[in-house]
Amino acid sequence: MAPLRSYVSGAWHVPPDGGAPLRDAVTGEEIAGISSAGIDMAAALAHGRGTGGPALRELTFHQRALLLKALALHLREHRDELYALSARTGATLADSRVDVDGGIGVLLSYASKGKRELPNDTVLLDGDVEPLGKGGTFAGRHILTPLQGVAVQINAFNFPVWGPLEKLAPAFLAGMPSLIKPASQTAYLTARLAELIVESGILPEGSVQLVCGGAGDLLDHLTEQDLVAFTGSAATARKLRAHPVVIGRSVRFNAEADSLNCSILGPDARPGTPEFDLFVGQLVTEMTVKAGQKCTAIRRALVPAPLMAEVADAVAGRLAGVTVGNPSSPDVRMGALAGLEQREEVRRGLKALLAGGRIVFGDPETVRVVDADAERGAFVSPVLLRADDPGRAEPHEIEVFGPVSTLLPYTTAEEAVALAARGRGSLVGSVVTADPGFARSVVLGAAPWHGRLLVLDSEDAGESTGHGSPLPMLVHGGPGRAGGGEEMGGIRGVVHHMQRTAVQASPAMLTAITGRWTAGAPRTRADVHPFRKHLEELTIGDTVVAGPRTVTLDDIEHFAEFTGDTFYAHMDEEAAKANPFFGGRVAHGYLVVSFAAGLFVSPEPGPVLANYGLENLRFLAPTFPGDELTVTLTAKQITPREDAGYGEVRWDTEVTRQDGAVVAAYDVLTLVAKRPGGR
Amino acid sequence: MAPLRSYVSGAWHVPPDGGAPLRDAVTGEEIAGISSAGIDMAAALAHGRGTGGPALRELTFHQRALLLKALALHLREHRDELYALSARTGATLADSRVDVDGGIGVLLSYASKGKRELPNDTVLLDGDVEPLGKGGTFAGRHILTPLQGVAVQINAFNFPVWGPLEKLAPAFLAGMPSLIKPASQTAYLTARLAELIVESGILPEGSVQLVCGGAGDLLDHLTEQDLVAFTGSAATARKLRAHPVVIGRSVRFNAEADSLNCSILGPDARPGTPEFDLFVGQLVTEMTVKAGQKCTAIRRALVPAPLMAEVADAVAGRLAGVTVGNPSSPDVRMGALAGLEQREEVRRGLKALLAGGRIVFGDPETVRVVDADAERGAFVSPVLLRADDPGRAEPHEIEVFGPVSTLLPYTTAEEAVALAARGRGSLVGSVVTADPGFARSVVLGAAPWHGRLLVLDSEDAGESTGHGSPLPMLVHGGPGRAGGGEEMGGIRGVVHHMQRTAVQASPAMLTAITGRWTAGAPRTRADVHPFRKHLEELTIGDTVVAGPRTVTLDDIEHFAEFTGDTFYAHMDEEAAKANPFFGGRVAHGYLVVSFAAGLFVSPEPGPVLANYGLENLRFLAPTFPGDELTVTLTAKQITPREDAGYGEVRWDTEVTRQDGAVVAAYDVLTLVAKRPGGR
Repeated sequence: MAPLRSYVSGAWHVPPDGGAPLRDAVTGEEIAGISSAGIDMAAALAHGRGTGGPALRELTFHQRALLLKALALHLREHRDELYALSARTGATLADSRVDVDGGIGVLLSYASKGKRELPNDTVLLDGDVEPLGKGGTFAGRHILTPLQGVAVQINAFNFPVWGPLEKLAPAFLAGMPSLIKPASQTAYLTARLAELIVESGILPEGSVQLVCGGAGDLLDHLTEQDLVAFTGSAATARKLRAHPVVIGRSVRFNAEADSLNCSILGPDARPGTPEFDLFVGQLVTEMTVKAGQKCTAIRRALVPAPLMAEVADAVAGRLAGVTVGNPSSPDVRMGALAGLEQREEVRRGLKALLAGGRIVFGDPETVRVVDADAERGAFVSPVLLRADDPGRAEPHEIEVFGPVSTLLPYTTAEEAVALAARGRGSLVGSVVTADPGFARSVVLGAAPWHGRLLVLDSEDAGESTGHGSPLPMLVHGGPGRAGGGEEMGGIRGVVHHMQRTAVQASPAMLTAITGRWTAGAPRTRADVHPFRKHLEELTIGDTVVAGPRTVTLDDIEHFAEFTGDTFYAHMDEEAAKANPFFGGRVAHGYLVVSFAAGLFVSPEPGPVLANYGLENLRFLAPTFPGDELTVTLTAKQITPREDAGYGEVRWDTEVTRQDGAVVAAYDVLTLVAKRPGGR
Repeated sequence: MAPLRSYVSGAWHVPPDGGAPLRDAVTGEEIAGISSAGIDMAAALAHGRGTGGPALRELTFHQRALLLKALALHLREHRDELYALSARTGATLADSRVDVDGGIGVLLSYASKGKRELPNDTVLLDGDVEPLGKGGTFAGRHILTPLQGVAVQINAFNFPVWGPLEKLAPAFLAGMPSLIKPASQTAYLTARLAELIVESGILPEGSVQLVCGGAGDLLDHLTEQDLVAFTGSAATARKLRAHPVVIGRSVRFNAEADSLNCSILGPDARPGTPEFDLFVGQLVTEMTVKAGQKCTAIRRALVPAPLMAEVADAVAGRLAGVTVGNPSSPDVRMGALAGLEQREEVRRGLKALLAGGRIVFGDPETVRVVDADAERGAFVSPVLLRADDPGRAEPHEIEVFGPVSTLLPYTTAEEAVALAARGRGSLVGSVVTADPGFARSVVLGAAPWHGRLLVLDSEDAGESTGHGSPLPMLVHGGPGRAGGGEEMGGIRGVVHHMQRTAVQASPAMLTAITGRWTAGAPRTRADVHPFRKHLEELTIGDTVVAGPRTVTLDDIEHFAEFTGDTFYAHMDEEAAKANPFFGGRVAHGYLVVSFAAGLFVSPEPGPVLANYGLENLRFLAPTFPGDELTVTLTAKQITPREDAGYGEVRWDTEVTRQDGAVVAAYDVLTLVAKRPGGR
């Protein structure tokens, strides 16, 4: 059988030996061999740093986002091929969709977030400008720049497509090349995924590499600018985290380890309520999807003590209807474990777990299968346990990575929270209740121990993505036992691949460094109104100063009458004087910004297409009748769109009184056309 | 000599033995003994978790901020006493101010940020609501809750006041108790600080503990909810990070290690320019403040090759004027190292460093001192080295923790960036230049290797806080050699003490859990207009719906004429049709929000004192002549001020057309009075 190829240093590497055999989880047939023999790990890392990194860093966030989208669409074309290979890992079609479509979904989500939430630039700003001196000549701002190393991504066997893609997407968007190391058991699927990626030519060379087989001396060659993102067992996480190079060079290390996640049934959710059925249904789903081989699966089901028997009966009843067998067979609801070794491990774990509970459904040793050989394929029955003493250690400490869950009783919300914490850190928990008070108590109490918490009720059940599904816009990871890390979480996952640096400088220097106009920096007052400039002609700092215009008492009274805004501070001198902030009748804030727009507008058709919003508007001082207003508008940020004939321009806006006091400060958001023919 | 007391488990602990002697850095006289013998570390941690944590978590962020402010004012009353002890560490009065006033400043900065940037609540929200389903019944939001353990703070000897306070402030504000372990050499000063804190009774019992002496088995008792914040040598950081409990329980570990920071002189900054003088002056300051015992000091001064001799002469000239001696003497500019052992270490380090350069100023073995005994006190001369081969390893790898710096030549900006990176991760770097292009190249190039970068020029020099000063609003920490951590950085440092959890739920459940109204949750339409309610009477979800009001073409034309905003999209049907977004004449966005205000206003004097701003205003659909507008205002967040008769209320605001389309969405920010007599 041909060994899997790796893709390192710009070429496909075929191991000199055949490698260890990888077997079909359903038939036991050999699929491929796997070995990393002969790979020069140091050279692969150097290739990522020297070729992939620089190529990525030349692209803006928006350009990287477009490549991620193109890659997603390309992979979507090849889904059927990936599904077919996925079936050989023991996955049903539904399981494969979670893995394959889920992974493609992460790419699309990051593509979309990159375009909407990041600038079309290579530097990301973090937080606001921090004034550091009263005179305004010294200020600070945090910038984020991509780490200049390689993101070494060590994946678990259970999601051979989603796993690598959920790590690749944020790294790529950040501008950091990836080196993917799949777990051996299912590496044939990841290897095909990598072939599709590399052969598409969509991503720059060096931005994705693949190492099939053992990691060898890979970690010995890490530097301070590399990072490791690991998914797998807590034991391996510990080992890697303690690697002398990881420790010695402060290598950023993120671990996402399987954990003893719980689901809590609310005391209100008695039999007959929709929430009771949702709890039972979700538990069965989480036990059987991917044959329970999910780091987010429910291992501990916490149930109000009086409902234990009813829940056990309901879950057992549903499990009895779950057909196990060949995942390609349409009747089959649950496929195989990833291999016979996994089955042995599940059986071993179950034996230990049984010290703390008893089986209410299933038999670890036998299972009836459809359209497959129960012994050659890695099949196992779903097994539901019941532990009547929730204080026993076993259910909270022993994770069986298969279709196995334990019911545990609790009596109060406080006890439920305390039992949840016995997992010593979980990726996810869920609360199934229609009682907002119970949900609040449990969520706030359990939050310090969880990376994600789902509240399931009849209102959100129709759209809920479920206890077990990490989503690209939410953090995935948990404290303690779950590894103490965070992946995804939208742009948070991008930032994880970047260095945050506080820059201290004068406003002019901050403007030059960040490409964003900073208050206090010089303004450019050109002859031409900046609204007459196309996007390419605009420069950061371009300014228009307009006014002054006097605001009369008549203006205020007229505006009040016209709009209906007859708030006393505008209409009644005595009452306004009694207000702690005004000291007399004042103009409406809305009048101030409307007059400002009348001052800075350039009425004729031109490049400015629309004012689509305002940000951070603050009324900082009152405008009294007779005050003269001047408005100063300065181009602060220019964001060309890659795929449209226009872009966004953000204008710093200040409205000042004749005495120099700023009465209103805000950002005006506009859409500005590129030059005709420009894209 | 009496041993230093520790404060653990709610009582002062006196070690049974006298402990190891601590000596005055200037006279060699014994000050106190130090020993942690007899301290039950497990009990101390349990006391923090069981008493300090719960007490802190009952307080809101604003209440914690007020306590920090009160503590700062209390400590300020005792500055002279702290200065006097500080002098015994070898510090001049100027040095002591950096330590003591700097530490008090961190408390005040966090008090102020807590009040301005955090809610008056116990839960912190992170990021926006993430819609998770198209139907709007399922959404996600990240919350931050305090870790339920103890922040173990292991401090360095060089800033015995600032060090503990810069760790305490963000931990306290987050709601996490601190256990302070000072470095032995200067622990007598931290012990007095802790006495002042504990005896003031300002902070809740259990929120601050002190362990003087060795850490013993402290780390063995850490749990997944504790964290370690370490400042000190890179070698100790490595050791602690690899501790089996830290690794095994994924204990959050933050290290801030001294590093080989550089300062880069721009090629434009030739002799005679202000920047040349700034560079020389800053280098001398960084060498001599705290006798160079600062993790942020400049160890490598990168100079354009042609300017090496001139810079060396200028720096040597200034160093010749630095008086060394008894730090309490008014003529003395540089005091002593923290002890004789430190001096031995400096001399050893200098020997190694000399393999890569030669001395241009100072003598490691002798120094003339004022008003002190040069041998009994830990005095050393400032030593400036020059390494003409910048490629040698020594200057980039050997840190001498004293008044020592090395000049290195470079030729291009790229080489300067590459040499900066040879430090393999630094806390801070600086660039002294008036050239924005050079500043941009160096800052963006060096950023991945730095936690902070200062650009110094004649514009910001007057207000610059200098290369060596970490500031509470900026991150302090650096990658690689510098420890790979982050401290302070304003609210970032608070978040570091909290667990981020993604909560998925229906909008109603999210509202109940977060205490913030979430779009899609039920709205409460009471009989009374919510603007007639005092702060205490308002409830999240309180809503007013007002309108409809028809917008006529006359309104648009009148508004245009009145304000002067005659943009063609409002005035010219043909031109508006040609605009890609409108399809015909539309109302001004400012008209829409002004009419909305006229609809939702409650004109008579009442609890709503002012509309002080708008946030996130977006115009989402056009308003055409004849459209009818309705506005819906819902109380989204209520923030009572602890120390005023009012608070902030944020209102979710939607303006809709007769067809249901949202034409504008924004948050209205108001100040609302408490009930008369309420505070």
